[in-house]
Amino acid sequence: MTAIYLDYNATTPVAPAVLDAMLPYLREEFGNPSSAYALGRRARDAVETARAQVAALIGARADEIVFTGGGTEASNLAIRGAVRRRAGNEPIVTSTLEHPATEEPCRLLERRGHPVRRIAAQPDGRIDADAAIAAIRAGAGLVTLIHAQNEIGVLQPVAAIAAAARAQGVPMHVDAAQSLGKIAVDVDALGVDLLSIAGHKLYAPKGVGALYVRRGVQLQPLLRGAGQEAGRRPGTENVAAIVGLGEACRLAAARLRDGSAAALRRLADDLLARLRREVPGLVLVGHPTERLPNTLNVLFPGVSGRAVLAACPDVHASTGSACHADREEASAVLRALGLPEHEALGAVRLSLGVPTTAQDIATAAATLGAAWRAVAGSEARPQRHFA
Amino acid sequence: MTAIYLDYNATTPVAPAVLDAMLPYLREEFGNPSSAYALGRRARDAVETARAQVAALIGARADEIVFTGGGTEASNLAIRGAVRRRAGNEPIVTSTLEHPATEEPCRLLERRGHPVRRIAAQPDGRIDADAAIAAIRAGAGLVTLIHAQNEIGVLQPVAAIAAAARAQGVPMHVDAAQSLGKIAVDVDALGVDLLSIAGHKLYAPKGVGALYVRRGVQLQPLLRGAGQEAGRRPGTENVAAIVGLGEACRLAAARLRDGSAAALRRLADDLLARLRREVPGLVLVGHPTERLPNTLNVLFPGVSGRAVLAACPDVHASTGSACHADREEASAVLRALGLPEHEALGAVRLSLGVPTTAQDIATAAATLGAAWRAVAGSEARPQRHFA
Repeated sequence: MTAIYLDYNATTPVAPAVLDAMLPYLREEFGNPSSAYALGRRARDAVETARAQVAALIGARADEIVFTGGGTEASNLAIRGAVRRRAGNEPIVTSTLEHPATEEPCRLLERRGHPVRRIAAQPDGRIDADAAIAAIRAGAGLVTLIHAQNEIGVLQPVAAIAAAARAQGVPMHVDAAQSLGKIAVDVDALGVDLLSIAGHKLYAPKGVGALYVRRGVQLQPLLRGAGQEAGRRPGTENVAAIVGLGEACRLAAARLRDGSAAALRRLADDLLARLRREVPGLVLVGHPTERLPNTLNVLFPGVSGRAVLAACPDVHASTGSACHADREEASAVLRALGLPEHEALGAVRLSLGVPTTAQDIATAAATLGAAWRAVAGSEARPQRHFA
Repeated sequence: MTAIYLDYNATTPVAPAVLDAMLPYLREEFGNPSSAYALGRRARDAVETARAQVAALIGARADEIVFTGGGTEASNLAIRGAVRRRAGNEPIVTSTLEHPATEEPCRLLERRGHPVRRIAAQPDGRIDADAAIAAIRAGAGLVTLIHAQNEIGVLQPVAAIAAAARAQGVPMHVDAAQSLGKIAVDVDALGVDLLSIAGHKLYAPKGVGALYVRRGVQLQPLLRGAGQEAGRRPGTENVAAIVGLGEACRLAAARLRDGSAAALRRLADDLLARLRREVPGLVLVGHPTERLPNTLNVLFPGVSGRAVLAACPDVHASTGSACHADREEASAVLRALGLPEHEALGAVRLSLGVPTTAQDIATAAATLGAAWRAVAGSEARPQRHFA
């Protein structure tokens, strides 16, 4: 059996059309966008076309897009660059469900004396919007939240919280690495000031990302050097990858328009229904409807998710998030939802993508079901898997 | 006439073999190196192979290489990450000839109260090693120098300065973006602790770089997030570009071994000789022999270099450094050598690369000579070009 890839939240393949768009810039169009001659100008034009494509996907203006080396750099730039400008020491408001790209910059600032207020998650995987709004009204220096949680796919109540931030004049950042391209993401509808984009979750290559920065929002650059990206991010532009990100955004906008992005939900629903038949007692983590169309985090009862996946190496999926796949502890995100350790250890994240087929779903469900039965049947001593 | 590219110090094309090495990782081998299944493990293995290739080029060990999003990030990580660890407030020792990727992080730290001591350059383009050594002996927190100056190609007396730094226990960083692959660069021969690498100066793609960090050197990560790169640089690894950088380093090592890297010096010498015949009074900037084999910075007498290049759009070269090509002032580096403004404005940097041919050199010299004569002849009012 060919491997079935169900880990699109970890990383996506580069779309063939994206690679085609990139290739000229990895071959003959190799100019430095800062160079004055024609080869350089064409590279500069390509970067600006991509900037407009990224902006169009999120309802922004081209000059509000800053290209970065990835989503992590984008979130570091947003959080550390926006906090730094504010004279006071008002808390950063964030959540217990953040990706390390948000949590670790917050932790760094906290160690340097900046207070951080982490809003707790409810069992359905959504943070408590009322608590967030109350924290903002009590005085905040920045709000930073994940838009769609990467492990469980649950959508956070960003718009309501952003409205409160806006009313208090507090800059609002969201990490849209997982949501972008899967659901409509519009910076004005969300009401956010800063938004992180990661190319490799969006069928663009790894090593490129972008930060949306609303006009008028004050931001200190994080890296220092020459004047690229209007002084906000130095270093010779990664032209080919930027062109790829632009094309990926154009393709994502088309999928959102023609309904193919939403169609993944039907495949995910089918996968969940099949898994429930295969695995009595299987639990879907998080809100049943306020979620990405492509993401299912399910708890296999009585076994560890790691053992289930080890028993079916031809289904590529993850436990916890892929960034820390070697970790043996239960996912911190699932623990933050209040799940007990032994239940959380049963988690498997299945994330679908554009290439996923109905046949993939049927095969994956049967394979996972058989693996679960094999593991559960052999688990005379559960500690063999929970150790 | 086809354009003749003589701006390899601004950026290089991706070598065909480098692109060939990258392509599988832009197509079917798209796994996240953090993923536990086979697709992820193969990506991780590819990153580790590249790490060994980069290390081999500079005489380092694989675990001393940290991949970054480019040379600018590498130098920011080195300077800000190494300074931060030191409790005292001893000055950073640097020079007046640094690339913005070094100068701007130093300036940031200076604004935050960290003293910076900038060693002056001599007219031959080398910084005063005795002054640097004296500054180090007086107490320094970090030394950071460019190895081969990007605009003039002059090699700095790094080894002598590094020996003094070593004797004082001061960490020593060099920016080897321009020297790597053009001359032998060995971290032990140089005696440095930190060394910046930029892919796109080395026939690897843009958007990837590396920092060499000698074992035992304490370094704080600059970006914060997940635990990639042994906790030193978070974010999903840019697998394809890292593979490309590894292959580019392997190719560079082969060129250094077989003498083809040094052979560029003969072409550059030929270009200089031809230009001197075409342009009486033409001056080579900087030390006649302590220089990169591929780089000539020449002063066209009585005209602006910008006007000369504008008159021959089929020769792709730069005035000042490509990072600030829109600037009308004379290069700050040339001014730091003591060149008067009106002479420095005549500068053109011609930088050769692996694909450069003897025919390119002959044609470029004739074209530049004709352009100079056209511009110089039309310059009844020199201020038209110097304004």
